[in-house]
Amino acid sequence: MVLMTEGLMDPWRAKTAASLLRYRRDEVVAVLDSTAVGRDVAAALGAGAGLEVVPSVAAAMKYRPDTLVVGIAPSGGRLPPAMRTHVIDALRAGWTVYSGLHTFLCDDPQLAALAAEHGAALFDARKVPVDLPCGTMRAAGMAVRRVLTVGTDCNSGKMCTSIELDAAARRRGWKSLFVPTGQTGIFIAGWGMALDRVISDFVAGAAEQLLARAADRQICFIEGQGALTHAAYSGVTLSLMHGFLPDAMVLCHVAGRPAHNSCPTPLPTLADARDLYEHAMRHVRPCKVVGAALNTLGLDDAAARKAVDAAAEELDLPATDAIRFGADPLMPALEALLR
Amino acid sequence: MVLMTEGLMDPWRAKTAASLLRYRRDEVVAVLDSTAVGRDVAAALGAGAGLEVVPSVAAAMKYRPDTLVVGIAPSGGRLPPAMRTHVIDALRAGWTVYSGLHTFLCDDPQLAALAAEHGAALFDARKVPVDLPCGTMRAAGMAVRRVLTVGTDCNSGKMCTSIELDAAARRRGWKSLFVPTGQTGIFIAGWGMALDRVISDFVAGAAEQLLARAADRQICFIEGQGALTHAAYSGVTLSLMHGFLPDAMVLCHVAGRPAHNSCPTPLPTLADARDLYEHAMRHVRPCKVVGAALNTLGLDDAAARKAVDAAAEELDLPATDAIRFGADPLMPALEALLR
Repeated sequence: MVLMTEGLMDPWRAKTAASLLRYRRDEVVAVLDSTAVGRDVAAALGAGAGLEVVPSVAAAMKYRPDTLVVGIAPSGGRLPPAMRTHVIDALRAGWTVYSGLHTFLCDDPQLAALAAEHGAALFDARKVPVDLPCGTMRAAGMAVRRVLTVGTDCNSGKMCTSIELDAAARRRGWKSLFVPTGQTGIFIAGWGMALDRVISDFVAGAAEQLLARAADRQICFIEGQGALTHAAYSGVTLSLMHGFLPDAMVLCHVAGRPAHNSCPTPLPTLADARDLYEHAMRHVRPCKVVGAALNTLGLDDAAARKAVDAAAEELDLPATDAIRFGADPLMPALEALLR
Repeated sequence: MVLMTEGLMDPWRAKTAASLLRYRRDEVVAVLDSTAVGRDVAAALGAGAGLEVVPSVAAAMKYRPDTLVVGIAPSGGRLPPAMRTHVIDALRAGWTVYSGLHTFLCDDPQLAALAAEHGAALFDARKVPVDLPCGTMRAAGMAVRRVLTVGTDCNSGKMCTSIELDAAARRRGWKSLFVPTGQTGIFIAGWGMALDRVISDFVAGAAEQLLARAADRQICFIEGQGALTHAAYSGVTLSLMHGFLPDAMVLCHVAGRPAHNSCPTPLPTLADARDLYEHAMRHVRPCKVVGAALNTLGLDDAAARKAVDAAAEELDLPATDAIRFGADPLMPALEALLR
């Protein structure tokens, strides 16, 4: 596959590309970004050492790709015009185009016609089933232990932390599953549901439905969405909390981030965020934050260690950066759930 | 119009019918319910004295209606089979059929074909615009004061309380507007948006868009949805709170209700509910509950007065049943917002 970041090659805006480089590296042959030819992909996106940045679909042909992934997940989720040109070229080449945007490529008459004409395919990861139920709190009756990542903000490392925790659990021999709830998680795991795309009345019910896949596991690690303090997405966050009814929450936070992503309010402190998440569960099904996972991207190891230690002290809980330092510090608290 | 309650003629399940009887009484000619012929409509639904309950569309013809309203709003929002027969008869008679269900009648091939054949019309109040934005907290910059009803449960009187508060405000000469956010409010006011039908990522943004209509008013009274303690709908509730960014909240509660509507958790106390609502606003835009509105349907006047007094004492705030005792006790706290 070729990952398109066109003009947005940083790990925050090209979150989907950066995550696929981390977790599906073997399948990536190039990054497509006409504004970033010659850049070091690993330095720019945190993974993908040695990959070439190509300026066009034509220039990527030498790697014989058959898939283009729209590597961004912008607020609101529309296809930027600069990316549209590349999508058209990819369809003309007969590739499959994967998108996690809110605006579905397969609903675009021009793109759908091109795909049909050239034997190409459009796959919109945010498409959700139409017949979803309302929530009934049935997760509370399931044996599988449920760990939900929550955050001080959106785009704070919830998906990566869930994946790393799941991997650490499986290394310990636990029957574990990562449960994807957003487009990037779906690309990585090959299943899931984009819960922020579901009609608001049905999000908790959709979460319950998604959980059925984890019914035969001991534990599952669920990708959280948004943040209770982010005014645009807080409703999605709470629906996931009350649909999945977690047994434990892991609090994610970007070290040093001063304000919310695309929302003018200041970030809560870690202690305030914990209080808010636990408070919102109290009358439904009490649940604790059992640890913190920091995203220390951009800091050196010493500064990252300092940030993690400060978080552990502020919360009096285990903390880590699951990517930089591994998920181990959080595992004892989670093991306790299995007893 | 004829209001259909088919088998569900009580004010809780036939919420839409009961509310239209209260606020659009002059336009109603009969109630359609083959299981309730001969019943006293006012006794069953709290309003509509003197209306006949007819068993069929044919039996309603003598009143020369041109409109059928699906008078229910069930959880999940599908058309019960027993109602479908009446809808078909109404379409064959060339009537307009209004529905607030999640399942759109106009997407039903048989119903759509019948409507076309007989010159009838289908109006789905829950249809929402497709191109909605994400929330940006722009409500915070608007001059109009915003009063949001919240509740200890769904179906607890938020819509009626908002309408009564708006009417009381207009009687005082305030430039006021009722802002409908659900299907019944839309039927009553003739505009609005069913925010529980909006894709979850866009609910706060949709709330902001809806608010534009109130931009030239001094104050507006916004119909809340769901409850923070109701696991199925809490996300919708929080999205409205963080989209509308209210200046004050009014807490609605059904006197004597022991548990949530279609959700197994116990109801919070009024004090706990206030705490939860204020807590959820604290990190976004602090806002207080300024009064309580009880729904005392089914109690006698003395018991209702006692319930209202107990609520006022528990919260140390003004309280009323806005329908039984009027909205006046809540107005001084709201007048303070206009200064």
